[in-house]
Amino acid sequence: MNLVLLEHSDFIDTHRVCLKGRRLAHTLQVLRAASGDTLRVGLLDGKLGKGVIEQIDNTSMEMVVEFDADPPAKLPVRLILALPRPKVLNRLIAAAASMGIREIDLINAWRVEKAYWESPRLSEENLRLQSTLGLEQAGDTILPSIRLHRLFTPLVREELPAQLKGQVALLANPRANEDAPRKVTEPLVLAIGPEGGFIDREVETFRDIGFTEVRFGPRILRVETALAFLIGRLF
Amino acid sequence: MNLVLLEHSDFIDTHRVCLKGRRLAHTLQVLRAASGDTLRVGLLDGKLGKGVIEQIDNTSMEMVVEFDADPPAKLPVRLILALPRPKVLNRLIAAAASMGIREIDLINAWRVEKAYWESPRLSEENLRLQSTLGLEQAGDTILPSIRLHRLFTPLVREELPAQLKGQVALLANPRANEDAPRKVTEPLVLAIGPEGGFIDREVETFRDIGFTEVRFGPRILRVETALAFLIGRLF
Repeated sequence: MNLVLLEHSDFIDTHRVCLKGRRLAHTLQVLRAASGDTLRVGLLDGKLGKGVIEQIDNTSMEMVVEFDADPPAKLPVRLILALPRPKVLNRLIAAAASMGIREIDLINAWRVEKAYWESPRLSEENLRLQSTLGLEQAGDTILPSIRLHRLFTPLVREELPAQLKGQVALLANPRANEDAPRKVTEPLVLAIGPEGGFIDREVETFRDIGFTEVRFGPRILRVETALAFLIGRLF
Repeated sequence: MNLVLLEHSDFIDTHRVCLKGRRLAHTLQVLRAASGDTLRVGLLDGKLGKGVIEQIDNTSMEMVVEFDADPPAKLPVRLILALPRPKVLNRLIAAAASMGIREIDLINAWRVEKAYWESPRLSEENLRLQSTLGLEQAGDTILPSIRLHRLFTPLVREELPAQLKGQVALLANPRANEDAPRKVTEPLVLAIGPEGGFIDREVETFRDIGFTEVRFGPRILRVETALAFLIGRLF
């Protein structure tokens, strides 16, 4: 936690917050902070700043906070991601949020196991928590928006085509003939398939609506590695 | 497992292997392969090829194999990595191996907790297993060499300086003034610090022996995200 992310409901006065629960526990046990210490803070959807701990014990902490800096720019990226295994989901959402990805669409695909959609990790509460952990890691304040699409076709055939104007739309595919570009400056829509990849019919659908298949090397990487690798390469 | 990695000890005849244990279990339970199926195989430190399953049951499998292709080129990267938390180590070694990193030096640093060095995950056997999983993911056959350095100074002060000739030596530091380069073509030595970073004295040591501090954006990423992000960017 390189930043304590604050929400409006944490404020007990204009410049004073009271925290309990996860952030308190982390401050005590990991940061080992004490009264008088200064922590980096950020206001959800707002600015970065500093908080001075005025009181802290096992039940709550109070900080006087002030804000003076903008959070780092988000990456203009919309990620279209075949729903990964639940085991991987938390790390992936946190990693995506930490890199500043703006929007995440978790979609179904032929090779996504149906059971993945029943995972409690897909709850709004958990997705928000994992995103928050990513922001706190990276020093950002703006949550990515995350949407779930239990059906492939309505999103890709009906919704996406109208939304791709002025955007670069890439489909990551280790078997593509074209290399992934570098230093993309336009907003980007990046589609990443499930383990084993999108099936041919799905790839064709993406191609039909304007996606370009790109490769980023001869190696097949795990989705969490591939995502960071691609973002590092593209921006 | 996008490739079954074979060792000389698996061979029971010139073109025939017999597998048990982890690779058999994965073939049965995840790949759900049966007699007659063809699998991608690779010979440790050797070529890629194909294996046809001739017999498979719960105790063993036999394949007839042939090799015809070179593995993907390794990245000319030596990673100097402050020993991460054991929880992260397995994923990180597998990810590094999957990306084709050639050498990994796990080193001590001021902010590395001493207890990390006692983790059973540092056993030669486990490091080899995690590397193998990375190779099997990526379709590679050449293990990275991994070395452990329980002391910072002997490696960085005494060993490294003579080894940096003709290499680009970079220290990842979110607070550096210089941006990380792109498309590095020389062999690269890349140093990544622990959570919280290398301390000033350690950074100075790296600088003294010729490392350049580079930043790769305003965000502080977890080490597993940072590594893939950096490799994607640098190559």
